[in-house]
Amino acid sequence: MSKRILLNSDLGEGFGAWRMGEDSLIMPYIDCANIACGFHAGDPLIMQNTVSAAVEHGVQIGAHPAYPDLVGFGRRSMALQPAEVEALVLYQIGALAAFCSAAGTTVAYVKPHGALYHDMLKNDALFAAVVRAVKQASSGVSKPLPLVMLAKVDPSHWQQIASEYGVELWFEGFADRAYNNDGTLVARTQPGAVIHEPEAMLAQAIQFAEQSEITTINGQRLALHIDTLCVHGDTHEALAAVQAIRSHAAFAK
Amino acid sequence: MSKRILLNSDLGEGFGAWRMGEDSLIMPYIDCANIACGFHAGDPLIMQNTVSAAVEHGVQIGAHPAYPDLVGFGRRSMALQPAEVEALVLYQIGALAAFCSAAGTTVAYVKPHGALYHDMLKNDALFAAVVRAVKQASSGVSKPLPLVMLAKVDPSHWQQIASEYGVELWFEGFADRAYNNDGTLVARTQPGAVIHEPEAMLAQAIQFAEQSEITTINGQRLALHIDTLCVHGDTHEALAAVQAIRSHAAFAK
Amino acid sequence: MSKRILLNSDLGEGFGAWRMGEDSLIMPYIDCANIACGFHAGDPLIMQNTVSAAVEHGVQIGAHPAYPDLVGFGRRSMALQPAEVEALVLYQIGALAAFCSAAGTTVAYVKPHGALYHDMLKNDALFAAVVRAVKQASSGVSKPLPLVMLAKVDPSHWQQIASEYGVELWFEGFADRAYNNDGTLVARTQPGAVIHEPEAMLAQAIQFAEQSEITTINGQRLALHIDTLCVHGDTHEALAAVQAIRSHAAFAK
Amino acid sequence: MSKRILLNSDLGEGFGAWRMGEDSLIMPYIDCANIACGFHAGDPLIMQNTVSAAVEHGVQIGAHPAYPDLVGFGRRSMALQPAEVEALVLYQIGALAAFCSAAGTTVAYVKPHGALYHDMLKNDALFAAVVRAVKQASSGVSKPLPLVMLAKVDPSHWQQIASEYGVELWFEGFADRAYNNDGTLVARTQPGAVIHEPEAMLAQAIQFAEQSEITTINGQRLALHIDTLCVHGDTHEALAAVQAIRSHAAFAK
Repeated sequence: MSKRILLNSDLGEGFGAWRMGEDSLIMPYIDCANIACGFHAGDPLIMQNTVSAAVEHGVQIGAHPAYPDLVGFGRRSMALQPAEVEALVLYQIGALAAFCSAAGTTVAYVKPHGALYHDMLKNDALFAAVVRAVKQASSGVSKPLPLVMLAKVDPSHWQQIASEYGVELWFEGFADRAYNNDGTLVARTQPGAVIHEPEAMLAQAIQFAEQSEITTINGQRLALHIDTLCVHGDTHEALAAVQAIRSHAAFAK
Repeated sequence: MSKRILLNSDLGEGFGAWRMGEDSLIMPYIDCANIACGFHAGDPLIMQNTVSAAVEHGVQIGAHPAYPDLVGFGRRSMALQPAEVEALVLYQIGALAAFCSAAGTTVAYVKPHGALYHDMLKNDALFAAVVRAVKQASSGVSKPLPLVMLAKVDPSHWQQIASEYGVELWFEGFADRAYNNDGTLVARTQPGAVIHEPEAMLAQAIQFAEQSEITTINGQRLALHIDTLCVHGDTHEALAAVQAIRSHAAFAK
Repeated sequence: MSKRILLNSDLGEGFGAWRMGEDSLIMPYIDCANIACGFHAGDPLIMQNTVSAAVEHGVQIGAHPAYPDLVGFGRRSMALQPAEVEALVLYQIGALAAFCSAAGTTVAYVKPHGALYHDMLKNDALFAAVVRAVKQASSGVSKPLPLVMLAKVDPSHWQQIASEYGVELWFEGFADRAYNNDGTLVARTQPGAVIHEPEAMLAQAIQFAEQSEITTINGQRLALHIDTLCVHGDTHEALAAVQAIRSHAAFAK
Repeated sequence: MSKRILLNSDLGEGFGAWRMGEDSLIMPYIDCANIACGFHAGDPLIMQNTVSAAVEHGVQIGAHPAYPDLVGFGRRSMALQPAEVEALVLYQIGALAAFCSAAGTTVAYVKPHGALYHDMLKNDALFAAVVRAVKQASSGVSKPLPLVMLAKVDPSHWQQIASEYGVELWFEGFADRAYNNDGTLVARTQPGAVIHEPEAMLAQAIQFAEQSEITTINGQRLALHIDTLCVHGDTHEALAAVQAIRSHAAFAK
């Protein structure tokens, strides 16, 4: 029997007086909280509070590092050198780790945010830089932290790079995004890219869990292994979907 | 025989393309490097490089956290809540700790920077917030990190607050600053506030080390215990003074 | 007959992906929009859009400059030099003026935000710095922009400073804040500081308009002249109050 | 007889406590100062002082807007939307314009900085966005500000876009950079990309001025029209070259 797929969500994405998302509503239904580390969102006080809430709910904490771009919410590609990326990912993991340690827990994994999440799969030097940062952030622990990346039909290329540093990869799928026939996400600019109906999200989640596959936007079935499923709680429909997914046997804690 | 006084200096205070100070010149002569953590100076790459240089020279690393004020270099007081200060000090220590851990070392102490360094002595709630951050940053280690503060003729008030959290205080003196009769620093706006002559800096350093006292700007001798002496290397005279101090038996490694 | 009291509101206070307030709901009911200029809130795109919306509704545009403190939303005092304040206020007015000019209008007045709004009344050098910035921002126009400050029982002290630079002051009152017997605002930490009932806000607004006075939190009537009334639209009650105030003859356009 | 080629230089590129360049040394020898506007360098106080120094020396002032990237000094490409670029260029020109107006002068032209300078020539939508910002910043004046771009062997493509908005282009050459046979700059990663010898810089400047051509890195002569020549003053050699260029009849004021 395969490992249970973990539900993850991006949390702690407010900044100062600005709120974003409804962290407290979704926290009870997830396994993993990806916590913003101050570069795209999340000031120190918000980080501290989000870590505290995750601990309270027994939710694993992931670092969610990003490009230094508050105004763009880390969603805009920036042409950084690999050495710059390595250093800023390590910085952000370290900052979050301090709050985790103070709360009696540890960072459990790393999931890059936004443009960095996508850019690292287009540029091996960038990917290696992120892997090295993850590896270094794991100094002194027995096993490096896992790194979350978008699930690929054939992820062997990235597995090879990560394995050079002993870093495990967690492959991520989305409950609320449509997939192309090649396993990539349908671009948000395309019709049907985002799934809004709770039933459709639940169906996609179950198909991931029970068949290790998805049905693409063209109706084709495609094998796609994931370790973790990204869910959102920013709308009533999304939250309803998360609750339904969590209630399903395949996703129960 | 008393503990040797440690020489400390503020390093890693560039930012991006901007340089500040001549870190490589002074690094060989100090015991402790206070490394900027990104809020007043020091981007992740500079932090990584400065940690690496400190390790190479066998220099202890201190976190040098500050108010979030790049344009003001952390020198301008900001009316932050204690909870905000606690969180941002913990954030900065954690970020630096990641670079230290990756380089096979640890953060050895914490010295707040600029306005935060001074403000925490004027406001007990702020001081306690810094102490709590230091305590939390020490989670999982046997003994909390020491916190560096300006030496006081009677430091018992702060020792009491720090002792509630089990945090040790290191008292800091300056080789290049004149002191008032009450043991406070002569304000920079006053004539004679800054000592420029290497001989005078050396003399003050030796008096600290051998007599645990200073001679104030009015010529009075005053008992003032310090654990660490702050030195600078940004001018030829200052660097010459540091070299002379280090060559003196009382400060030899 | 006296000049009509203008209704003003703080708008454009989102930043990047973060929203704040419901600008579109309140814009139809106000005379003056205080637009954030990027230092406490308001990125360039939000500024451009807010200027455009104000022009569409025939609403006067005021610059709403602040301390450089995004994470603190400009609400935390910062110990800046007067020369620093002068320069950053001028910078922010200029940035907003470019959007105004492009939209065929001009900045009509300046209202400092948050901590700067309050600090300038506690420090004459700071107040003069703001006045000088306003004066300089008015270069090339026939009459300097007015500067908005909190109404005072006796504002002669500030009128004298402002008059040295030919800058007119607009005194501001609040529909939703209780006043002390000396004309100062009841601190937010005190019970009753904020008025939530639309009827009470309307009553205070009418008393300002018709009697040039308020009834303090202790029930005393106090003469207090204002030129402009600050209103908020961030709750249903607040918005209802604004609509009621605008419908009253004393505030009709 | 053709128009004299104007000498321009990037100035005001410090930030807070950080200095960069020696503005006061080069200011006497240039026609045009490109002043940083706060996004890659240049805080409000530095902008004010740099404008003041330019006015004192009778030097024309250009806005030098950049991507919002202090740590990267605006040298890293960012994937911004054209609307974002339009707004942030307009913002920065406006901020500088306020200091100019206060000093009795005006912004005379706009030269994008760093990555934005290069990116706009690779992306027509971005170029049009910059042109629109320049056009809008010119509201109320009789003639739009000129926009500085890298000289091209055939600039007609960009002239056409700019002409749709009535914006004039100024073509820029470099005294200290080698050129490829197609008129592009030799990449900094290539040997010989940067010219260090004052004599070689002077020769290239004179060839631009007298022949409207350059000699490429391969020794080929290539027609290349420029309106303005970028010079630097950050080394003794560079400054000596600027003085020599200015002393030549073709560049005398």
